[in-house]
Amino acid sequence: MTVHARLAAANLTLPTPQLQGGAYKPAIIAGDLLSLPAQFPIVEGRAAVVGRLGDDLTTEQGYHAARLAALNALARINHTLGGFDRLVQIIHVSGILLTTPDFTDHARVMDGASDLLNLALADKAGHTRSLQGAASLPGRLPVQLVITAQIRPA
Amino acid sequence: MTVHARLAAANLTLPTPQLQGGAYKPAIIAGDLLSLPAQFPIVEGRAAVVGRLGDDLTTEQGYHAARLAALNALARINHTLGGFDRLVQIIHVSGILLTTPDFTDHARVMDGASDLLNLALADKAGHTRSLQGAASLPGRLPVQLVITAQIRPA
Amino acid sequence: MTVHARLAAANLTLPTPQLQGGAYKPAIIAGDLLSLPAQFPIVEGRAAVVGRLGDDLTTEQGYHAARLAALNALARINHTLGGFDRLVQIIHVSGILLTTPDFTDHARVMDGASDLLNLALADKAGHTRSLQGAASLPGRLPVQLVITAQIRPA
Repeated sequence: MTVHARLAAANLTLPTPQLQGGAYKPAIIAGDLLSLPAQFPIVEGRAAVVGRLGDDLTTEQGYHAARLAALNALARINHTLGGFDRLVQIIHVSGILLTTPDFTDHARVMDGASDLLNLALADKAGHTRSLQGAASLPGRLPVQLVITAQIRPA
Repeated sequence: MTVHARLAAANLTLPTPQLQGGAYKPAIIAGDLLSLPAQFPIVEGRAAVVGRLGDDLTTEQGYHAARLAALNALARINHTLGGFDRLVQIIHVSGILLTTPDFTDHARVMDGASDLLNLALADKAGHTRSLQGAASLPGRLPVQLVITAQIRPA
Repeated sequence: MTVHARLAAANLTLPTPQLQGGAYKPAIIAGDLLSLPAQFPIVEGRAAVVGRLGDDLTTEQGYHAARLAALNALARINHTLGGFDRLVQIIHVSGILLTTPDFTDHARVMDGASDLLNLALADKAGHTRSLQGAASLPGRLPVQLVITAQIRPA
């Protein structure tokens, strides 16, 4: 079963890869390593979820935001590699969340990203994980994912 | 002298690898790279040090917490690789600390991790380092370490 | 045109590599990967820009601080590799900024680092990017860069 088929079975499709401002690259391939820039819960160029976890947003809204950011990461991987055949596994997902000082439910929010990766990539989902609350994030987006993956060189 | 002998000489033993919640892996091997998930000052499944550096906790309590988190990282490396023979060196240690806004003693806290790695791993301790204060961390744990290492493929 | 010539054309020279405290290494080479420790806007051993973005400092002061930190990264790469011939490309730049809770101009600040890398390294500048506001940073420095690069093994 392909990544696209697994997503379709969950009523999901890959979005168009997220455009980004700033003087950097949308992906870097270095040997068997793929590095993605920060992925956010942006849909069709607009912030889909905005605000701070712990006051503006609930944990479930954070879970949903992390899921959207992970979907953007998959779209970028698909675009960069021309599909998922060359993807070996996700290595690491760093989750940087916009939170109040006493927020403690980071793991549940990040499961929004991990569950989506597991659903879509199955045995290629891999990934170790880290997670933290930031003092601020661009556009007051609630979730930023920083992802590295192992690939087969072209 | 082995890692275990060096630890024993300092009255330390490797703990049982820390269990973790969440839909991710306890370690990822990608070629000669080993990625660990966030390591915390957890002892026998319970938070050993809780609170914020700068008000709840002193720098020395932070040093101790960073040391415990590094010991958990060593336990995970040992468990994953079946010992330390395949470990080439630690590449990077990222230290994410729970702090008040005006805390500035991150380097001293992180020396708790670096000193332990140097003590235990000697010429394999390597590591570059980064360090920051976070707005929030899971369970109000004061220290999170994110570690990558170079290994010899099996 | 060399890196040094491109910098000179912009009236810039590589500083002496920044010294650092703490029990870690100034650079780690692991196969074709180069990892640098946190780079800060330090000039001749002293903080060149201090304070928080959003109240103490303007975005343009942040841009300047990020540029200085990137220049220190280049100095370290040059020192570690004995020049830039072995540098293949910058893989990732993580920008950790000291900000007020409502600061949102992270991307413009980080362009200070990205623009400098692009100016100096041209087609080797590469880099994906992530960016966040931290609750605290050592010495209240406004910018910390964490950089990995791909190199040719010696």
